[in-house]
Amino acid sequence: MPFTTYGETVSYRYNGASIAAKYGARASLIRSVADWSMDTPHTGTMRYKQSIKKIPHAALTIEDALMIGRIYDRGNPVVLRLELESKMVPDRLSRNIIAEIKGSIYPDEIVVIGGHIDSWDVGQGAHDDGGGCVASWQALNIIKGLGLRPKRTIRCVLWTNEENGGRGSRSYADTYSKDLDNHVVAIESDNGVFNPKGFGFTGSKEAKAVVSSIAKLLAPIDAAKITDGGRAADIIPLNNRGVPAMSLKVDNSRYFWYHHTNADTFDKIDFNSFNKCVAAMTVMAYVLADLDDPLSR
Amino acid sequence: MPFTTYGETVSYRYNGASIAAKYGARASLIRSVADWSMDTPHTGTMRYKQSIKKIPHAALTIEDALMIGRIYDRGNPVVLRLELESKMVPDRLSRNIIAEIKGSIYPDEIVVIGGHIDSWDVGQGAHDDGGGCVASWQALNIIKGLGLRPKRTIRCVLWTNEENGGRGSRSYADTYSKDLDNHVVAIESDNGVFNPKGFGFTGSKEAKAVVSSIAKLLAPIDAAKITDGGRAADIIPLNNRGVPAMSLKVDNSRYFWYHHTNADTFDKIDFNSFNKCVAAMTVMAYVLADLDDPLSR
Repeated sequence: MPFTTYGETVSYRYNGASIAAKYGARASLIRSVADWSMDTPHTGTMRYKQSIKKIPHAALTIEDALMIGRIYDRGNPVVLRLELESKMVPDRLSRNIIAEIKGSIYPDEIVVIGGHIDSWDVGQGAHDDGGGCVASWQALNIIKGLGLRPKRTIRCVLWTNEENGGRGSRSYADTYSKDLDNHVVAIESDNGVFNPKGFGFTGSKEAKAVVSSIAKLLAPIDAAKITDGGRAADIIPLNNRGVPAMSLKVDNSRYFWYHHTNADTFDKIDFNSFNKCVAAMTVMAYVLADLDDPLSR
Repeated sequence: MPFTTYGETVSYRYNGASIAAKYGARASLIRSVADWSMDTPHTGTMRYKQSIKKIPHAALTIEDALMIGRIYDRGNPVVLRLELESKMVPDRLSRNIIAEIKGSIYPDEIVVIGGHIDSWDVGQGAHDDGGGCVASWQALNIIKGLGLRPKRTIRCVLWTNEENGGRGSRSYADTYSKDLDNHVVAIESDNGVFNPKGFGFTGSKEAKAVVSSIAKLLAPIDAAKITDGGRAADIIPLNNRGVPAMSLKVDNSRYFWYHHTNADTFDKIDFNSFNKCVAAMTVMAYVLADLDDPLSR
């Protein structure tokens, strides 16, 4: 299938095996869910339906998928022998990592800022989501280094297990379930740390107006744009329980070149772009935490 | 070492093992000779010096070289275990492939046009040099399809063994050694088939002026630029014996992303760019073959 959006195309990876098995397939192969490739297979999570036979499921590189397509189109039979080494291992204990600057006036009111500390098991997870994690904790570092202390608490949360089930984010929402009314907003960076454009926002109109006026501070780095849609994997459990959700939005034109491949490595991060992401996260979190009135829901 | 030009940097791949061995190295590793990488090691030929111990020699990806550099810079020891599967196999018979349109008036005077039919043993050799081969034979196809027949012969030569010793091009020069005075010019496409810019030329001033005036015909596709330096791997043996040499020049800003890697695949060829290469090769070869007077040497 052609790549349209990740959200649309990833369904073939996530659900493809069980749907193919239902029609009698012995194995299922998809073209990598990516818009470009340098012989870099795109990996990621998938799920078997309970009642349907579990068959092998693998992602071919774009190059190999195209080659097989050309062979098929010439009317030649295509026979593949699969050797898959993937396996499930038992669950192990893992933890979210949390750090915060206590608010000076309303310490119980919390602005959450974070990313996820796990990455898919290829590459280095530099963009997904090492950069988001470091940008979030650098925001705290900068505020502390400047000797600033906002009225409300800014809490950096590095969620675990985003790639494989989201148990870190669900655990956070469960652990703090009684405090969620005091969570002013949750801001995630999980789109890579390319040049920032602004933030997506999911919340009330009144809150969006406030966020939009804060974002004007980011005009000098071209990151002042507030769009609809701030939900991201780790803050969905919070947003489902009423916490406004924000996502750092970036120029993601190359994100799916690297995402979930061996090429998601440290050298793919441009420090100038990354520093702009840090600036956007820092300014947005600080001003939201220092408002006279909390965001309306 | 940083990538400056391929010509400058490739020396580390070609000569590195013997130089390292001279100083007592047990093995030699280089950073891939490429300016960018997506976990794509850059392969290619190397040579051992006769009198010096032959040690293993391998190219790391840029990503791995950078990571090892970071570990080393932190003062940590770096221990690598090498498992190399490369081996030499015996020589086998191979052949150049030659096709031509006989000239109508001076059939013994020859314009050579070509590329090399072998590729390095990763990827598909799409840019290096499948595209150059197909562009050359398409030039003949187009001239024939248009019912044209130039005054001189246009000979398409697809040389073998460029990557591993150049025996195809040397064999051609030896086989036709008595006819080389009648070789008007040799034109090679071996820089990938990206958007063409023009041709490099090595020959007399008078000949360069003629070539430059022909190139004006290629202004509508922005391929009218004639620069100094037309020697290319397969036509060096001809140029060494006096035959003017020309190279198709292209926008090679991405060439070393793909060159000698698994990513040199068919999907990396843009058909519009490729067709412009065909047009440039066809026009240049036809007009040179149809001149009233042959190029002066």
